[in-house]
Amino acid sequence: MASSTAPHGPVVESRIKVRYAETDAQGVVYHGNYVIWFEVGRTDYCDAAGYPYAQMEAEGALTTVIEVHARYRRSARYGDVVTVKTRMGERKSRGFTFHYEVYLPDGTLAVEGETKHLWIDREGRLRRAPDAPQAAFAAFLGGE
Amino acid sequence: MASSTAPHGPVVESRIKVRYAETDAQGVVYHGNYVIWFEVGRTDYCDAAGYPYAQMEAEGALTTVIEVHARYRRSARYGDVVTVKTRMGERKSRGFTFHYEVYLPDGTLAVEGETKHLWIDREGRLRRAPDAPQAAFAAFLGGE
Amino acid sequence: MASSTAPHGPVVESRIKVRYAETDAQGVVYHGNYVIWFEVGRTDYCDAAGYPYAQMEAEGALTTVIEVHARYRRSARYGDVVTVKTRMGERKSRGFTFHYEVYLPDGTLAVEGETKHLWIDREGRLRRAPDAPQAAFAAFLGGE
Amino acid sequence: MASSTAPHGPVVESRIKVRYAETDAQGVVYHGNYVIWFEVGRTDYCDAAGYPYAQMEAEGALTTVIEVHARYRRSARYGDVVTVKTRMGERKSRGFTFHYEVYLPDGTLAVEGETKHLWIDREGRLRRAPDAPQAAFAAFLGGE
Repeated sequence: MASSTAPHGPVVESRIKVRYAETDAQGVVYHGNYVIWFEVGRTDYCDAAGYPYAQMEAEGALTTVIEVHARYRRSARYGDVVTVKTRMGERKSRGFTFHYEVYLPDGTLAVEGETKHLWIDREGRLRRAPDAPQAAFAAFLGGE
Repeated sequence: MASSTAPHGPVVESRIKVRYAETDAQGVVYHGNYVIWFEVGRTDYCDAAGYPYAQMEAEGALTTVIEVHARYRRSARYGDVVTVKTRMGERKSRGFTFHYEVYLPDGTLAVEGETKHLWIDREGRLRRAPDAPQAAFAAFLGGE
Repeated sequence: MASSTAPHGPVVESRIKVRYAETDAQGVVYHGNYVIWFEVGRTDYCDAAGYPYAQMEAEGALTTVIEVHARYRRSARYGDVVTVKTRMGERKSRGFTFHYEVYLPDGTLAVEGETKHLWIDREGRLRRAPDAPQAAFAAFLGGE
Repeated sequence: MASSTAPHGPVVESRIKVRYAETDAQGVVYHGNYVIWFEVGRTDYCDAAGYPYAQMEAEGALTTVIEVHARYRRSARYGDVVTVKTRMGERKSRGFTFHYEVYLPDGTLAVEGETKHLWIDREGRLRRAPDAPQAAFAAFLGGE
Protein backbone atom coordinates (compact mmCIF):
# COMPACT_ATOMS: atom_id res chain seq x y z
CA MET A 1 0.00 0.00 0.00
CA ALA A 2 1.50 3.29 -1.07
CA SER A 3 2.10 5.85 1.63
CA SER A 4 -0.14 8.88 1.23
CA THR A 5 2.77 11.22 1.90
CA ALA A 6 5.05 10.03 -0.88
CA PRO A 7 4.32 11.28 -4.38
CA HIS A 8 1.76 8.92 -5.85
CA GLY A 9 -0.93 8.68 -8.51
CA PRO A 10 -0.83 10.21 -11.98
CA VAL A 11 2.11 12.26 -13.21
CA VAL A 12 1.03 15.42 -15.02
CA GLU A 13 3.52 16.87 -17.47
CA SER A 14 3.88 20.54 -18.40
CA ARG A 15 6.12 21.77 -21.18
CA ILE A 16 7.65 25.21 -20.65
CA LYS A 17 9.70 27.09 -23.21
CA VAL A 18 12.27 29.14 -21.33
CA ARG A 19 11.72 32.89 -21.68
CA TYR A 20 14.62 35.32 -21.94
CA ALA A 21 12.98 37.19 -19.05
CA GLU A 22 13.54 34.08 -16.93
CA THR A 23 17.31 34.01 -17.40
CA ASP A 24 19.84 35.94 -15.33
CA ALA A 25 23.34 37.34 -15.74
CA GLN A 26 24.90 33.89 -15.23
CA GLY A 27 23.29 32.94 -18.55
CA VAL A 28 20.90 30.42 -17.02
CA VAL A 29 17.38 30.45 -15.58
CA TYR A 30 17.19 32.44 -12.35
CA HIS A 31 16.64 29.98 -9.48
CA GLY A 32 13.51 31.75 -8.23
CA ASN A 33 11.71 31.10 -11.50
CA TYR A 34 11.53 27.35 -10.92
CA VAL A 35 9.13 28.17 -8.08
CA ILE A 36 6.86 29.77 -10.70
CA TRP A 37 7.23 26.68 -12.88
CA PHE A 38 6.08 24.57 -9.92
CA GLU A 39 2.93 26.74 -9.99
CA VAL A 40 2.53 26.03 -13.71
CA GLY A 41 2.83 22.33 -12.87
CA ARG A 42 0.10 22.31 -10.23
CA THR A 43 -2.21 24.46 -12.37
CA ASP A 44 -1.92 21.84 -15.10
CA TYR A 45 -2.39 19.12 -12.49
CA CYS A 46 -5.70 20.60 -11.32
CA ASP A 47 -6.79 21.03 -14.94
CA ALA A 48 -5.94 17.38 -15.62
CA ALA A 49 -7.85 16.33 -12.50
CA GLY A 50 -10.91 18.08 -13.92
CA TYR A 51 -11.06 20.82 -11.30
CA PRO A 52 -9.21 23.93 -12.48
CA TYR A 53 -7.87 26.13 -9.70
CA ALA A 54 -9.68 29.15 -11.20
CA GLN A 55 -12.93 27.24 -10.69
CA MET A 56 -12.03 26.45 -7.07
CA GLU A 57 -11.39 30.15 -6.47
CA ALA A 58 -14.67 31.12 -8.13
CA GLU A 59 -16.39 28.74 -5.71
CA GLY A 60 -14.67 30.29 -2.70
CA ALA A 61 -12.14 27.52 -2.16
CA LEU A 62 -8.71 29.11 -2.18
CA THR A 63 -5.40 27.69 -1.13
CA THR A 64 -2.33 29.32 0.33
CA VAL A 65 1.27 28.18 0.01
CA ILE A 66 2.85 27.53 3.41
CA GLU A 67 6.12 25.94 2.32
CA VAL A 68 8.35 25.77 -0.75
CA HIS A 69 11.41 23.58 -1.03
CA ALA A 70 13.57 23.35 -4.16
CA ARG A 71 16.82 21.48 -4.80
CA TYR A 72 18.88 22.49 -7.83
CA ARG A 73 21.05 20.09 -9.80
CA ARG A 74 21.37 21.47 -13.33
CA SER A 75 20.50 24.74 -15.03
CA ALA A 76 18.02 25.36 -17.82
CA ARG A 77 18.87 27.93 -20.49
CA TYR A 78 17.06 30.19 -22.94
CA GLY A 79 16.01 28.05 -25.87
CA ASP A 80 15.31 24.98 -23.75
CA VAL A 81 11.87 23.45 -23.55
CA VAL A 82 11.75 21.93 -20.07
CA THR A 83 9.28 19.39 -18.72
CA VAL A 84 7.74 19.74 -15.28
CA LYS A 85 6.39 16.49 -13.84
CA THR A 86 3.89 17.06 -11.04
CA ARG A 87 2.47 14.51 -8.63
CA MET A 88 0.30 14.72 -5.54
CA GLY A 89 1.88 13.92 -2.17
CA GLU A 90 0.23 14.11 1.22
CA ARG A 91 -3.46 15.02 1.17
CA LYS A 92 -5.37 15.78 4.36
CA SER A 93 -8.56 17.56 5.34
CA ARG A 94 -6.69 20.83 5.88
CA GLY A 95 -4.17 20.81 3.05
CA PHE A 96 -1.97 18.92 0.61
CA THR A 97 1.50 18.66 -0.87
CA PHE A 98 2.67 18.66 -4.47
CA HIS A 99 5.95 17.17 -5.72
CA TYR A 100 7.73 18.47 -8.81
CA GLU A 101 10.59 17.41 -11.04
CA VAL A 102 11.88 19.70 -13.79
CA TYR A 103 13.72 17.99 -16.65
CA LEU A 104 16.01 19.48 -19.28
CA PRO A 105 15.43 18.64 -22.98
CA ASP A 106 18.02 15.82 -22.79
CA GLY A 107 16.11 14.15 -19.93
CA THR A 108 18.44 15.27 -17.16
CA LEU A 109 16.82 16.20 -13.86
CA ALA A 110 17.38 19.92 -13.31
CA VAL A 111 15.37 20.74 -10.19
CA GLU A 112 13.08 18.90 -7.81
CA GLY A 113 10.93 20.24 -5.02
CA GLU A 114 7.72 20.33 -3.04
CA THR A 115 5.10 22.87 -2.08
CA LYS A 116 2.68 22.59 0.84
CA HIS A 117 -0.73 24.20 0.73
CA LEU A 118 -3.60 24.87 3.12
CA TRP A 119 -7.23 25.52 2.24
CA ILE A 120 -8.47 29.03 3.06
CA ASP A 121 -11.69 30.97 2.52
CA ARG A 122 -12.00 34.35 0.82
CA GLU A 123 -11.04 36.11 4.04
CA GLY A 124 -7.86 34.06 4.32
CA ARG A 125 -9.07 31.93 7.25
CA LEU A 126 -8.07 28.27 7.37
CA ARG A 127 -10.85 25.89 6.43
CA ARG A 128 -11.45 22.22 5.68
CA ALA A 129 -11.08 21.02 2.10
CA PRO A 130 -14.31 21.52 0.15
CA ASP A 131 -16.00 18.28 -0.94
CA ALA A 132 -16.00 18.85 -4.69
CA PRO A 133 -12.26 19.29 -5.34
CA GLN A 134 -11.46 16.59 -2.75
CA ALA A 135 -13.68 14.18 -4.66
CA ALA A 136 -12.12 15.23 -7.96
CA PHE A 137 -8.60 14.64 -6.63
CA ALA A 138 -9.58 11.28 -5.12
CA ALA A 139 -11.06 10.11 -8.42
CA PHE A 140 -8.02 11.34 -10.33
CA LEU A 141 -5.71 9.56 -7.88
CA GLY A 142 -7.50 6.30 -8.63
CA GLY A 143 -10.12 5.84 -5.96
CA GLU A 144 -7.82 6.01 -2.95
CA MET B 1 2.57 79.11 -18.70
CA ALA B 2 3.72 75.51 -18.69
CA SER B 3 1.77 73.11 -20.81
CA SER B 4 -0.16 70.62 -18.72
CA THR B 5 0.90 67.80 -21.00
CA ALA B 6 4.66 68.21 -20.68
CA PRO B 7 6.29 66.85 -17.55
CA HIS B 8 6.07 69.57 -14.92
CA GLY B 9 6.09 70.17 -11.17
CA PRO B 10 8.18 68.33 -8.60
CA VAL B 11 10.59 65.57 -9.56
CA VAL B 12 10.41 62.60 -7.22
CA GLU B 13 13.49 60.41 -7.06
CA SER B 14 13.55 56.69 -6.30
CA ARG B 15 16.74 54.73 -5.72
CA ILE B 16 16.68 51.13 -6.83
CA LYS B 17 19.45 48.60 -6.22
CA VAL B 18 19.46 46.21 -9.16
CA ARG B 19 18.49 42.66 -8.19
CA TYR B 20 20.14 39.64 -9.76
CA ALA B 21 16.60 38.45 -10.56
CA GLU B 22 16.21 41.54 -12.75
CA THR B 23 19.16 40.71 -15.01
CA ASP B 24 19.06 38.48 -18.07
CA ALA B 25 21.45 36.30 -20.05
CA GLN B 26 22.95 39.34 -21.80
CA GLY B 27 24.33 40.33 -18.39
CA VAL B 28 22.18 43.44 -18.08
CA VAL B 29 18.76 44.33 -16.69
CA TYR B 30 15.94 42.73 -18.73
CA HIS B 31 14.15 45.49 -20.62
CA GLY B 32 10.74 44.59 -19.21
CA ASN B 33 11.88 45.33 -15.67
CA TYR B 34 12.18 49.05 -16.31
CA VAL B 35 8.39 49.04 -16.63
CA ILE B 36 8.28 47.76 -13.04
CA TRP B 37 10.71 50.49 -12.01
CA PHE B 38 8.34 53.04 -13.54
CA GLU B 39 5.73 51.66 -11.13
CA VAL B 40 8.18 52.09 -8.23
CA GLY B 41 8.62 55.67 -9.39
CA ARG B 42 4.93 56.55 -9.41
CA THR B 43 4.33 54.77 -6.08
CA ASP B 44 7.00 57.01 -4.56
CA TYR B 45 5.47 59.99 -6.37
CA CYS B 46 2.05 59.40 -4.80
CA ASP B 47 3.69 58.90 -1.40
CA ALA B 48 5.55 62.19 -1.81
CA ALA B 49 2.31 63.91 -2.85
CA GLY B 50 0.78 62.78 0.43
CA TYR B 51 -1.71 60.37 -1.10
CA PRO B 52 -0.32 56.83 -1.23
CA TYR B 53 -1.78 54.65 -3.95
CA ALA B 54 -2.66 51.97 -1.37
CA GLN B 55 -4.86 54.61 0.33
CA MET B 56 -6.55 55.48 -2.98
CA GLU B 57 -7.34 51.80 -3.51
CA ALA B 58 -8.67 51.44 0.04
CA GLU B 59 -11.00 54.36 -0.73
CA GLY B 60 -12.21 52.74 -3.95
CA ALA B 61 -10.23 54.92 -6.35
CA LEU B 62 -8.20 52.60 -8.54
CA THR B 63 -6.32 53.35 -11.70
CA THR B 64 -5.56 51.22 -14.71
CA VAL B 65 -2.60 51.51 -17.07
CA ILE B 66 -3.71 52.11 -20.66
CA GLU B 67 -0.34 52.81 -22.25
CA VAL B 68 3.35 52.22 -21.60
CA HIS B 69 6.14 53.63 -23.69
CA ALA B 70 9.84 53.10 -22.95
CA ARG B 71 12.94 54.12 -24.89
CA TYR B 72 16.23 52.41 -24.03
CA ARG B 73 19.63 54.08 -24.34
CA ARG B 74 21.95 52.34 -21.90
CA SER B 75 21.81 49.22 -19.75
CA ALA B 76 21.87 48.92 -15.98
CA ARG B 77 23.70 45.99 -14.41
CA TYR B 78 23.65 43.99 -11.20
CA GLY B 79 25.43 46.03 -8.56
CA ASP B 80 24.15 49.35 -9.89
CA VAL B 81 21.97 51.62 -7.80
CA VAL B 82 19.84 53.43 -10.36
CA THR B 83 17.76 56.57 -9.87
CA VAL B 84 14.25 56.88 -11.26
CA LYS B 85 13.06 60.47 -11.67
CA THR B 86 9.28 60.71 -11.90
CA ARG B 87 7.19 63.73 -12.90
CA MET B 88 3.53 64.31 -13.61
CA GLY B 89 2.48 65.02 -17.18
CA GLU B 90 -1.04 65.51 -18.47
CA ARG B 91 -3.74 65.44 -15.80
CA LYS B 92 -7.42 65.38 -16.73
CA SER B 93 -10.70 64.46 -15.10
CA ARG B 94 -10.49 60.92 -16.49
CA GLY B 95 -6.82 60.14 -16.19
CA PHE B 96 -3.21 61.26 -16.08
CA THR B 97 0.27 60.62 -17.44
CA PHE B 98 3.57 60.04 -15.64
CA HIS B 99 7.02 60.63 -17.14
CA TYR B 100 10.09 58.70 -16.03
CA GLU B 101 13.83 58.88 -16.48
CA VAL B 102 16.11 56.13 -15.19
CA TYR B 103 19.72 57.13 -14.54
CA LEU B 104 22.79 54.95 -14.09
CA PRO B 105 25.10 55.55 -11.09
CA ASP B 106 27.39 57.72 -13.27
CA GLY B 107 24.49 60.02 -14.16
CA THR B 108 23.94 58.66 -17.68
CA LEU B 109 20.35 58.42 -18.84
CA ALA B 110 19.52 54.73 -19.29
CA VAL B 111 15.81 54.68 -20.07
CA GLU B 112 12.98 57.17 -20.39
CA GLY B 113 9.29 56.60 -20.78
CA GLU B 114 5.70 57.42 -19.99
CA THR B 115 2.66 55.63 -18.65
CA LYS B 116 -0.96 56.70 -19.13
CA HIS B 117 -3.61 55.88 -16.56
CA LEU B 118 -7.37 56.07 -16.25
CA TRP B 119 -9.42 56.17 -13.06
CA ILE B 120 -11.61 53.11 -12.48
CA ASP B 121 -13.91 51.88 -9.71
CA ARG B 122 -13.67 48.51 -7.96
CA GLU B 123 -15.62 46.88 -10.78
CA GLY B 124 -13.19 48.20 -13.35
CA ARG B 125 -15.55 50.81 -14.83
CA LEU B 126 -14.13 54.14 -15.93
CA ARG B 127 -14.89 56.99 -13.53
CA ARG B 128 -13.95 60.60 -12.93
CA ALA B 129 -11.00 61.38 -10.73
CA PRO B 130 -11.99 61.43 -7.07
CA ASP B 131 -11.67 64.85 -5.41
CA ALA B 132 -9.23 63.97 -2.65
CA PRO B 133 -6.31 62.64 -4.72
CA GLN B 134 -6.90 65.31 -7.38
CA ALA B 135 -6.62 67.99 -4.69
CA ALA B 136 -3.50 66.33 -3.28
CA PHE B 137 -1.85 66.24 -6.72
CA ALA B 138 -2.83 69.87 -7.44
CA ALA B 139 -1.33 71.02 -4.16
CA PHE B 140 1.83 69.00 -4.76
CA LEU B 141 2.14 70.43 -8.26
CA GLY B 142 2.11 73.92 -6.79
CA GLY B 143 -1.43 75.19 -6.97
CA GLU B 144 -1.96 74.73 -10.69
CA MET C 1 2.95 47.87 -52.56
CA ALA C 2 2.84 47.30 -48.82
CA SER C 3 4.94 49.65 -46.76
CA SER C 4 7.85 47.91 -45.11
CA THR C 5 7.10 49.71 -41.85
CA ALA C 6 3.56 48.41 -41.39
CA PRO C 7 3.16 44.90 -39.99
CA HIS C 8 3.33 42.52 -42.92
CA GLY C 9 4.06 38.92 -43.84
CA PRO C 10 3.19 35.84 -41.81
CA VAL C 11 1.41 36.06 -38.48
CA VAL C 12 2.93 33.77 -35.86
CA GLU C 13 0.65 32.76 -33.02
CA SER C 14 1.72 31.90 -29.47
CA ARG C 15 -0.62 30.48 -26.85
CA ILE C 16 0.10 31.47 -23.28
CA LYS C 17 -1.69 30.11 -20.23
CA VAL C 18 -1.80 32.88 -17.65
CA ARG C 19 0.26 32.10 -14.55
CA TYR C 20 -0.88 33.12 -11.07
CA ALA C 21 2.53 34.76 -10.71
CA GLU C 22 1.57 37.06 -13.59
CA THR C 23 -1.53 38.47 -11.88
CA ASP C 24 -1.58 41.40 -9.46
CA ALA C 25 -3.75 42.63 -6.59
CA GLN C 26 -6.36 44.00 -9.02
CA GLY C 27 -7.07 40.38 -9.94
CA VAL C 28 -5.80 40.72 -13.51
CA VAL C 29 -2.49 40.28 -15.32
CA TYR C 30 0.06 42.93 -14.26
CA HIS C 31 0.56 45.30 -17.20
CA GLY C 32 4.33 44.80 -17.28
CA ASN C 33 3.94 41.11 -18.04
CA TYR C 34 2.54 41.74 -21.52
CA VAL C 35 6.01 43.02 -22.39
CA ILE C 36 7.32 39.55 -21.50
CA TRP C 37 4.59 37.99 -23.64
CA PHE C 38 5.78 40.15 -26.55
CA GLU C 39 9.16 38.45 -26.05
CA VAL C 40 7.47 35.04 -26.15
CA GLY C 41 5.84 36.14 -29.39
CA ARG C 42 9.06 37.14 -31.12
CA THR C 43 10.89 34.04 -29.87
CA ASP C 44 8.19 31.93 -31.51
CA TYR C 45 8.42 34.15 -34.60
CA CYS C 46 12.14 33.49 -34.98
CA ASP C 47 11.56 29.77 -34.42
CA ALA C 48 8.87 29.78 -37.12
CA ALA C 49 11.20 31.67 -39.47
CA GLY C 50 13.73 28.87 -39.03
CA TYR C 51 16.32 30.93 -37.17
CA PRO C 52 15.88 30.60 -33.39
CA TYR C 53 17.16 33.56 -31.41
CA ALA C 54 19.30 31.22 -29.27
CA GLN C 55 21.08 30.20 -32.49
CA MET C 56 21.63 33.84 -33.46
CA GLU C 57 23.19 34.48 -30.04
CA ALA C 58 25.38 31.40 -30.34
CA GLU C 59 26.64 32.81 -33.65
CA GLY C 60 27.41 36.18 -32.07
CA ALA C 61 24.42 38.04 -33.49
CA LEU C 62 22.58 39.58 -30.58
CA THR C 63 19.85 42.16 -30.55
CA THR C 64 18.97 44.81 -28.04
CA VAL C 65 15.55 46.34 -27.39
CA ILE C 66 15.56 50.10 -27.90
CA GLU C 67 11.85 50.81 -27.64
CA VAL C 68 8.71 49.20 -26.23
CA HIS C 69 5.22 50.54 -26.73
CA ALA C 70 2.07 48.85 -25.38
CA ARG C 71 -1.57 49.95 -25.45
CA TYR C 72 -3.98 48.23 -23.07
CA ARG C 73 -7.66 47.69 -23.83
CA ARG C 74 -8.81 44.69 -21.81
CA SER C 75 -7.34 42.58 -19.02
CA ALA C 76 -6.41 38.93 -19.07
CA ARG C 77 -6.99 36.85 -15.93
CA TYR C 78 -5.64 33.70 -14.30
CA GLY C 79 -7.18 30.75 -16.08
CA ASP C 80 -7.17 32.46 -19.48
CA VAL C 81 -5.22 31.06 -22.40
CA VAL C 82 -4.31 34.12 -24.43
CA THR C 83 -3.05 34.27 -28.00
CA VAL C 84 -0.19 36.53 -29.03
CA LYS C 85 -0.08 37.33 -32.75
CA THR C 86 3.33 38.54 -33.88
CA ARG C 87 4.26 40.11 -37.20
CA MET C 88 7.36 41.75 -38.58
CA GLY C 89 7.29 45.50 -39.20
CA GLU C 90 10.15 47.67 -40.40
CA ARG C 91 13.34 45.80 -41.23
CA LYS C 92 16.59 47.62 -42.00
CA SER C 93 20.28 46.85 -42.04
CA ARG C 94 20.66 48.05 -38.43
CA GLY C 95 17.49 46.80 -36.82
CA PHE C 96 13.85 45.82 -37.05
CA THR C 97 10.43 46.19 -35.46
CA PHE C 98 7.94 43.60 -34.26
CA HIS C 99 4.19 44.16 -33.88
CA TYR C 100 2.08 42.25 -31.36
CA GLU C 101 -1.57 41.73 -30.60
CA VAL C 102 -2.68 39.82 -27.51
CA TYR C 103 -6.16 38.30 -27.66
CA LEU C 104 -8.36 37.00 -24.83
CA PRO C 105 -9.96 33.53 -25.13
CA ASP C 106 -13.18 35.11 -26.48
CA GLY C 107 -11.27 36.79 -29.30
CA THR C 108 -11.26 40.29 -27.83
CA LEU C 109 -8.12 42.32 -28.36
CA ALA C 110 -6.53 42.87 -24.94
CA VAL C 111 -3.21 44.58 -25.73
CA GLU C 112 -1.29 45.67 -28.79
CA GLY C 113 2.22 47.00 -29.09
CA GLU C 114 5.55 47.19 -30.83
CA THR C 115 9.19 46.63 -29.96
CA LYS C 116 12.18 48.04 -31.81
CA HIS C 117 15.49 46.21 -31.90
CA LEU C 118 19.04 46.89 -33.01
CA TRP C 119 21.70 44.34 -33.90
CA ILE C 120 24.69 44.27 -31.53
CA ASP C 121 27.82 42.16 -31.14
CA ARG C 122 28.88 40.33 -27.99
CA GLU C 123 30.44 43.51 -26.60
CA GLY C 124 27.18 45.39 -27.07
CA ARG C 125 28.38 47.50 -30.02
CA LEU C 126 25.93 48.29 -32.81
CA ARG C 127 26.49 46.25 -35.95
CA ARG C 128 24.84 45.51 -39.27
CA ALA C 129 22.40 42.63 -39.51
CA PRO C 130 24.21 39.34 -40.13
CA ASP C 131 23.45 37.75 -43.49
CA ALA C 132 22.04 34.44 -42.32
CA PRO C 133 19.16 35.66 -40.14
CA GLN C 134 18.39 38.45 -42.64
CA ALA C 135 18.07 35.85 -45.39
CA ALA C 136 15.91 33.65 -43.16
CA PHE C 137 13.58 36.54 -42.37
CA ALA C 138 13.38 37.58 -46.03
CA ALA C 139 12.48 34.06 -47.09
CA PHE C 140 9.90 33.76 -44.33
CA LEU C 141 8.39 37.12 -45.32
CA GLY C 142 7.87 35.81 -48.81
CA GLY C 143 10.83 36.88 -50.86
CA GLU C 144 10.59 40.61 -50.23
CA MET D 1 30.53 27.64 21.41
CA ALA D 2 28.01 28.42 18.72
CA SER D 3 27.46 25.82 16.09
CA SER D 4 28.68 26.89 12.69
CA THR D 5 25.51 25.59 11.06
CA ALA D 6 23.00 27.66 13.04
CA PRO D 7 22.52 31.27 12.00
CA HIS D 8 25.17 33.29 13.77
CA GLY D 9 27.11 36.54 13.62
CA PRO D 10 25.78 39.90 12.45
CA VAL D 11 22.20 40.36 11.28
CA VAL D 12 21.97 42.49 8.15
CA GLU D 13 18.65 44.24 7.59
CA SER D 14 17.15 45.13 4.20
CA ARG D 15 14.06 47.28 3.81
CA ILE D 16 11.87 46.48 0.81
CA LYS D 17 8.84 48.48 -0.26
CA VAL D 18 6.37 46.05 -1.80
CA ARG D 19 5.84 46.61 -5.53
CA TYR D 20 2.44 46.20 -7.15
CA ALA D 21 4.18 43.87 -9.60
CA GLU D 22 4.99 41.59 -6.67
CA THR D 23 1.36 41.07 -5.64
CA ASP D 24 -1.01 38.47 -7.07
CA ALA D 25 -4.74 38.01 -7.54
CA GLN D 26 -5.18 37.02 -3.87
CA GLY D 27 -4.24 40.62 -3.05
CA VAL D 28 -0.99 39.68 -1.32
CA VAL D 29 2.64 39.21 -2.34
CA TYR D 30 3.09 36.16 -4.60
CA HIS D 31 4.93 33.49 -2.62
CA GLY D 32 7.71 33.14 -5.20
CA ASN D 33 8.78 36.74 -4.72
CA TYR D 34 10.06 36.13 -1.20
CA VAL D 35 12.78 34.02 -2.83
CA ILE D 36 13.84 37.19 -4.68
CA TRP D 37 13.77 39.12 -1.41
CA PHE D 38 16.10 36.49 0.06
CA GLU D 39 18.49 37.43 -2.77
CA VAL D 40 18.13 41.11 -1.85
CA GLY D 41 19.00 40.13 1.71
CA ARG D 42 22.19 38.28 0.84
CA THR D 43 23.29 40.99 -1.61
CA ASP D 44 23.02 43.49 1.24
CA TYR D 45 24.80 41.01 3.51
CA CYS D 46 27.80 40.77 1.16
CA ASP D 47 27.83 44.57 0.82
CA ALA D 48 27.82 44.92 4.62
CA ALA D 49 30.64 42.36 4.88
CA GLY D 50 32.71 44.56 2.57
CA TYR D 51 32.77 42.15 -0.35
CA PRO D 52 29.94 42.89 -2.80
CA TYR D 53 28.80 39.93 -4.85
CA ALA D 54 29.33 41.92 -8.07
CA GLN D 55 33.00 42.22 -7.06
CA MET D 56 33.24 38.47 -6.42
CA GLU D 57 31.83 37.81 -9.89
CA ALA D 58 34.23 40.31 -11.47
CA GLU D 59 37.06 38.36 -9.82
CA GLY D 60 35.76 35.05 -11.17
CA ALA D 61 34.25 33.78 -7.91
CA LEU D 62 30.63 32.97 -8.62
CA THR D 63 28.15 31.06 -6.54
CA THR D 64 25.21 28.91 -7.50
CA VAL D 65 22.07 28.24 -5.47
CA ILE D 66 21.61 24.53 -4.77
CA GLU D 67 18.69 24.71 -2.36
CA VAL D 68 15.90 27.09 -1.36
CA HIS D 69 13.53 26.51 1.52
CA ALA D 70 10.82 28.96 2.56
CA ARG D 71 8.11 28.70 5.22
CA TYR D 72 5.19 31.12 5.01
CA ARG D 73 3.28 32.41 8.05
CA ARG D 74 1.77 35.76 7.10
CA SER D 75 1.34 37.73 3.88
CA ALA D 76 2.82 41.07 2.94
CA ARG D 77 0.72 43.50 0.90
CA TYR D 78 1.24 46.39 -1.50
CA GLY D 79 2.04 49.45 0.58
CA ASP D 80 4.02 47.48 3.18
CA VAL D 81 7.68 48.13 3.80
CA VAL D 82 9.02 44.78 4.93
CA THR D 83 12.31 44.04 6.64
CA VAL D 84 14.50 41.12 5.62
CA LYS D 85 16.95 39.99 8.31
CA THR D 86 19.81 37.96 6.89
CA ARG D 87 22.40 35.92 8.79
CA MET D 88 25.14 33.50 7.78
CA GLY D 89 24.66 29.83 8.62
CA GLU D 90 26.99 26.98 7.74
CA ARG D 91 30.19 28.01 5.97
CA LYS D 92 32.55 25.44 4.46
CA SER D 93 35.30 25.35 1.88
CA ARG D 94 32.84 24.43 -0.89
CA GLY D 95 29.80 26.51 0.03
CA PHE D 96 27.65 28.26 2.60
CA THR D 97 24.11 28.78 3.84
CA PHE D 98 22.14 31.97 4.47
CA HIS D 99 19.16 32.28 6.82
CA TYR D 100 16.40 34.84 6.28
CA GLU D 101 13.46 36.23 8.19
CA VAL D 102 10.99 38.61 6.54
CA TYR D 103 9.03 40.85 8.90
CA LEU D 104 5.86 42.85 8.26
CA PRO D 105 5.73 46.54 9.26
CA ASP D 106 4.09 45.62 12.61
CA GLY D 107 6.99 43.33 13.48
CA THR D 108 5.19 40.05 12.71
CA LEU D 109 7.27 37.31 11.13
CA ALA D 110 5.91 36.74 7.60
CA VAL D 111 8.35 34.27 6.06
CA GLU D 112 11.54 32.50 7.04
CA GLY D 113 13.87 30.41 4.97
CA GLU D 114 17.34 29.34 3.95
CA THR D 115 19.37 29.14 0.77
CA LYS D 116 22.40 26.93 0.19
CA HIS D 117 25.16 27.97 -2.20
CA LEU D 118 28.23 26.42 -3.77
CA TRP D 119 31.24 28.22 -5.19
CA ILE D 120 31.70 27.84 -8.95
CA ASP D 121 34.06 29.22 -11.58
CA ARG D 122 33.05 31.05 -14.76
CA GLU D 123 32.47 27.74 -16.53
CA GLY D 124 30.11 26.58 -13.80
CA ARG D 125 32.52 24.02 -12.29
CA LEU D 126 32.57 23.55 -8.52
CA ARG D 127 35.57 25.13 -6.82
CA ARG D 128 36.88 25.90 -3.35
CA ALA D 129 35.98 29.24 -1.79
CA PRO D 130 38.41 31.93 -2.87
CA ASP D 131 40.55 33.36 -0.06
CA ALA D 132 39.49 36.99 -0.25
CA PRO D 133 35.74 36.66 0.27
CA GLN D 134 36.30 33.90 2.85
CA ALA D 135 38.55 36.26 4.82
CA ALA D 136 36.01 39.07 4.48
CA PHE D 137 33.20 36.86 5.79
CA ALA D 138 35.35 35.56 8.67
CA ALA D 139 36.23 39.10 9.73
CA PHE D 140 32.60 40.18 9.47
CA LEU D 141 31.51 37.18 11.53
CA GLY D 142 33.85 38.26 14.28
CA GLY D 143 37.06 36.36 13.86
CA GLU D 144 35.60 32.87 13.95
